[in-house]
Amino acid sequence: MAIAYNPHSTTRVITSSFLPPQPHVTMSQDELKKIAAYKAVELVRSGMVVGLGTGSTAKHAVDRIGDLLNQGILENIIGIPTSKRTHEQALSLNIPLSDIETHPVLDLAIDGADEVDPDLNLVKGRGGALLREKMIECASKQLVIIVDESKMVDYIGGSGLAMPVEVVPFCWKFTCKKLEMLFQEAECVAKIRTCEKTRDLFVTDNSNYTIDLCFKKNIGDLKAASDAILRIPGVVDHGMFLDMATTVIVAGDSGVIVKNKS
Amino acid sequence: MAIAYNPHSTTRVITSSFLPPQPHVTMSQDELKKIAAYKAVELVRSGMVVGLGTGSTAKHAVDRIGDLLNQGILENIIGIPTSKRTHEQALSLNIPLSDIETHPVLDLAIDGADEVDPDLNLVKGRGGALLREKMIECASKQLVIIVDESKMVDYIGGSGLAMPVEVVPFCWKFTCKKLEMLFQEAECVAKIRTCEKTRDLFVTDNSNYTIDLCFKKNIGDLKAASDAILRIPGVVDHGMFLDMATTVIVAGDSGVIVKNKS
Repeated sequence: MAIAYNPHSTTRVITSSFLPPQPHVTMSQDELKKIAAYKAVELVRSGMVVGLGTGSTAKHAVDRIGDLLNQGILENIIGIPTSKRTHEQALSLNIPLSDIETHPVLDLAIDGADEVDPDLNLVKGRGGALLREKMIECASKQLVIIVDESKMVDYIGGSGLAMPVEVVPFCWKFTCKKLEMLFQEAECVAKIRTCEKTRDLFVTDNSNYTIDLCFKKNIGDLKAASDAILRIPGVVDHGMFLDMATTVIVAGDSGVIVKNKS
Repeated sequence: MAIAYNPHSTTRVITSSFLPPQPHVTMSQDELKKIAAYKAVELVRSGMVVGLGTGSTAKHAVDRIGDLLNQGILENIIGIPTSKRTHEQALSLNIPLSDIETHPVLDLAIDGADEVDPDLNLVKGRGGALLREKMIECASKQLVIIVDESKMVDYIGGSGLAMPVEVVPFCWKFTCKKLEMLFQEAECVAKIRTCEKTRDLFVTDNSNYTIDLCFKKNIGDLKAASDAILRIPGVVDHGMFLDMATTVIVAGDSGVIVKNKS
């Protein structure tokens, strides 16, 4: 166990390795996601209210919870799905479901992420479910994030891939330009998200659109950036999940690493 | 002309009275709204891109702009309507219309308000159009607010009436509770808005819901309150328009007062 040192951070992250290095085994990205997901589900106890994440990694965790319930190893779980997609998956697995209106406090939520920085700040929402995920995971005592090692970045935006922003459809082109201007110094490129097959504009579960921001440079103070985005009228929410993750489980070829915020 | 002194304010507001006191004339609220609206339209010049507000006071201004265009006194006006309702009104008056995607900078916007504080901060949106109004009026070089004197308050929330917040429909009861908790110290009561006749939930132009916040006490630092509201996932925007109005025209029984932010 080691305490990671990050000179820019005020957060203590305690890291534990759970498997010995296995240098000769190369696993697929999906196998790594599954390992992280199964490790996370070890934290679920009978009787818990559990947030069920969305995306290819979280899907493994939801499957695993369904299996353990069906085997009787877990009992009295209440799942809170973070998207219509996860709702359907959980229903098919006979996981009892509720929502945050009925259960306003969750014991644990398990979800994937698109980026994780050294302070366990996240980018989420490339899968399209950021707002419901944020509403539900903000209500959870613990947020366990499961990723393969490709998602670890030095700073938010560091992958060069999208940081999504959910916006109302009304005059989205105007909002898109405002977002690009806001991060001009980080050489931001803002693009509306389209569906891969149809090229239609992608519509979120809340009937909004998504604008994907790519940064060429570090955007600096994340809380200031978050507030500045939220102040733009037309923005509903964004994919930066700051100070929310309590545990990050990272699966890589050399084993599983668990990072806990202390 | 007098410079208003507000011990809590860092803003200079210059006030001018345009009509002599007429203590024996009592006008209806609607007549006062019309006087303020007509005074505001005097600021519109031919060739301007003008934001057209929503509500019973702004309606008079839109009517007046339509009249002056039809009489040929104004020419080449482009109107940007702030709601579907105003869009229809302006169309019926033959006002040429556009949007902020085509005209991202407006010369002037004219709109009503539900509350105006001594620093010209506003509460808007009791009429239901706050988000589009905010998007469009943020893009305007000048924002002229027209009110009857009943809208002047000592502090935001001071009327005891609603400060509206637009929220996504998903788990709105949860968001409603979060808003109420946020302003617990101000003894906030948060209520979902319903349609007067049908009692159905009121749906905004952006297919969202509105939660009306009533405060029993002053909420204090408005910018901090604004950021705190926007940080709640599920909130789209709120009806506080801070540091946006450049002119407020107030019609009362004793005349018209024009307050300019210097």
